Amino acid sequence: VVDAKEKLKGRLSLKDLLTAKRNAHISDIFIPQVDFVTVHTKGEEVARVMQKYDLEAIPVVDEMNRLVGRVTIDDIVDFIKEEAEKDYQMAAGISQDVEADDNVWQLTRARLPWLVLGLFGGLGSVYIMKGFDEALANFPILFFFTPLIAAMAGNVGVQSSAIIVQGLANDNIKGSLLNRLFKEVGLSLINGTALGLLVMLFGFVVGQEQMVSITVAVSMLSVIIVAALIGTFVPIILDKQGIDPAIATGPFITTSNDIFGIFLFFYLAKLILGF
Amino acid sequence: VVDAKEKLKGRLSLKDLLTAKRNAHISDIFIPQVDFVTVHTKGEEVARVMQKYDLEAIPVVDEMNRLVGRVTIDDIVDFIKEEAEKDYQMAAGISQDVEADDNVWQLTRARLPWLVLGLFGGLGSVYIMKGFDEALANFPILFFFTPLIAAMAGNVGVQSSAIIVQGLANDNIKGSLLNRLFKEVGLSLINGTALGLLVMLFGFVVGQEQMVSITVAVSMLSVIIVAALIGTFVPIILDKQGIDPAIATGPFITTSNDIFGIFLFFYLAKLILGF
Repeated sequence: VVDAKEKLKGRLSLKDLLTAKRNAHISDIFIPQVDFVTVHTKGEEVARVMQKYDLEAIPVVDEMNRLVGRVTIDDIVDFIKEEAEKDYQMAAGISQDVEADDNVWQLTRARLPWLVLGLFGGLGSVYIMKGFDEALANFPILFFFTPLIAAMAGNVGVQSSAIIVQGLANDNIKGSLLNRLFKEVGLSLINGTALGLLVMLFGFVVGQEQMVSITVAVSMLSVIIVAALIGTFVPIILDKQGIDPAIATGPFITTSNDIFGIFLFFYLAKLILGF
Repeated sequence: VVDAKEKLKGRLSLKDLLTAKRNAHISDIFIPQVDFVTVHTKGEEVARVMQKYDLEAIPVVDEMNRLVGRVTIDDIVDFIKEEAEKDYQMAAGISQDVEADDNVWQLTRARLPWLVLGLFGGLGSVYIMKGFDEALANFPILFFFTPLIAAMAGNVGVQSSAIIVQGLANDNIKGSLLNRLFKEVGLSLINGTALGLLVMLFGFVVGQEQMVSITVAVSMLSVIIVAALIGTFVPIILDKQGIDPAIATGPFITTSNDIFGIFLFFYLAKLILGF
């Protein structure tokens, strides 16, 4: 329902219209409350409002509050699906909207850039290990643990970032940053301690030098804490800067956490084992 | 519109009802064609049909074709969103539906199992490298490249599996398995060759022994092809077995591709460098 100047005033229920008296005016039977969005409202926000109130359509108004059209739920279904799929593809290291049946060139364009990023990350790790190659003499076994440390750093980072990215998309992150910090550190302490104990157990079973097991366990715990913090706060910072936080999941966070994790591992190993 | 036995016969348009003659019967004005689903139809299928035809509601019938109710689009919006979020969380290594504001124990239960899987994968890599430790004498640099090989295997596997999982969810994978095989191999040859050349270039710039660069490049190409095939066919096989293919993305595929990739790398290195 709009006034003479096309301004949105309310809505009309079909049931009220059918059951109204013959001589009733629209102004007598319309409902003066209505949800609406403006032409500048972001798609995510439209989707959120429509989902929250289970609306089948929502009016769209311009800056002057004049009705200019509507968004129906089936447009939003496609939008929600595309948004979720885009976040998922980003997390999987696919930078463009591609489908299984797209051609090889389209798929390459979407996939190769992230692999190149991963390559540079991997070459970065080569450099870090070259910097600690004095450890080869007495503790070559440390170099066997790098894929484990990298995998832990990557997995934890992706887990933390995925939860934050979904929370930001659904607008359901409450509590302060300090609160989040405590929660991620607590979570990491639990996970890291459990995994550290498993590493100690493994070392004991295979008869590994105890100081090496301790080094791996302590480093893993530290790497898990740092990776969780990076995974949590990078998307939050990106979001505050107006950048889609979804780019912080997947290869980007895995690659940076790999490098950082491997450096931290050898740095702590040097402190503990003193090579 | 149903018959005397409650069997679904068609639908009625509100416009037709309002504009029909006073003495018209429903049987004269109803539309005898109607999309419907049964009580056994899977949620994904309902979502697919409703999205495809932009339906706002769809009737539900039982085994005898009797109308028992309907599904409205707002139920489906929530369903589509949850499905997409579940796939995303699986890909990120989060095994239960959790949100950023859940407590530390809920988050730990969802996250720790995948980290333990990653830990076993990492310990598997330690074992593989112990098996090739004779390479330490002449080619210690090979051990610096394992995070790179593992990252490539993991990233490629996640990319391939994500595209297949989305394709299966949207039911838009056409073409035969052989066709998919050729496409993934073609894609991997392009990506692998591009990345291999970058590795050679890096080796040349830093003055690395040429045979080592060739070994890394060739191994990386092979690992990329194998990882793409695993990433493609594991979800297809799981789906055929009636298992949710989404479990094949994320830590599961990363971990298995890590182990396999590192083994393949050292195996090929042994063949090429002959240590």
